[in-house]
Amino acid sequence: MNAPTDNIRVRLGQKVRQLREARGWSQEDLAARAFLHRNQIGYIEQGQRNISIETIARLAAAFDVPPGELFR
Amino acid sequence: MNAPTDNIRVRLGQKVRQLREARGWSQEDLAARAFLHRNQIGYIEQGQRNISIETIARLAAAFDVPPGELFR
Repeated sequence: MNAPTDNIRVRLGQKVRQLREARGWSQEDLAARAFLHRNQIGYIEQGQRNISIETIARLAAAFDVPPGELFR
Repeated sequence: MNAPTDNIRVRLGQKVRQLREARGWSQEDLAARAFLHRNQIGYIEQGQRNISIETIARLAAAFDVPPGELFR
């Protein structure tokens, strides 16, 4: 994988974990709020999923932040 | 599809078109710079693709903007 793509999974995963922990939520809590499976949250946070923009939209809605926030 | 997800495809497509046209690029130009197929650019701009974060990273690298910019 070329440089721009392989970092984005890891950075996004770190941001999801940061946003989740800042709210004191478990992975189960976030999964329920984002209509995702708990295991998916674990994989996403470990940078192991090339998630889609619709999953981005679900996570952003669960965190109540704009989608772009997940890339900051 | 629930509300937060179906809009993100359309908004992202509009943003890609806006960034592309601002640079005077054709869809072929953008496809070549982002290592994507020309047809994909057309579908993305029409809001018809649930693209992945790696495709987001490629488009952002081609436009030389941070990935979050594609969601503004």
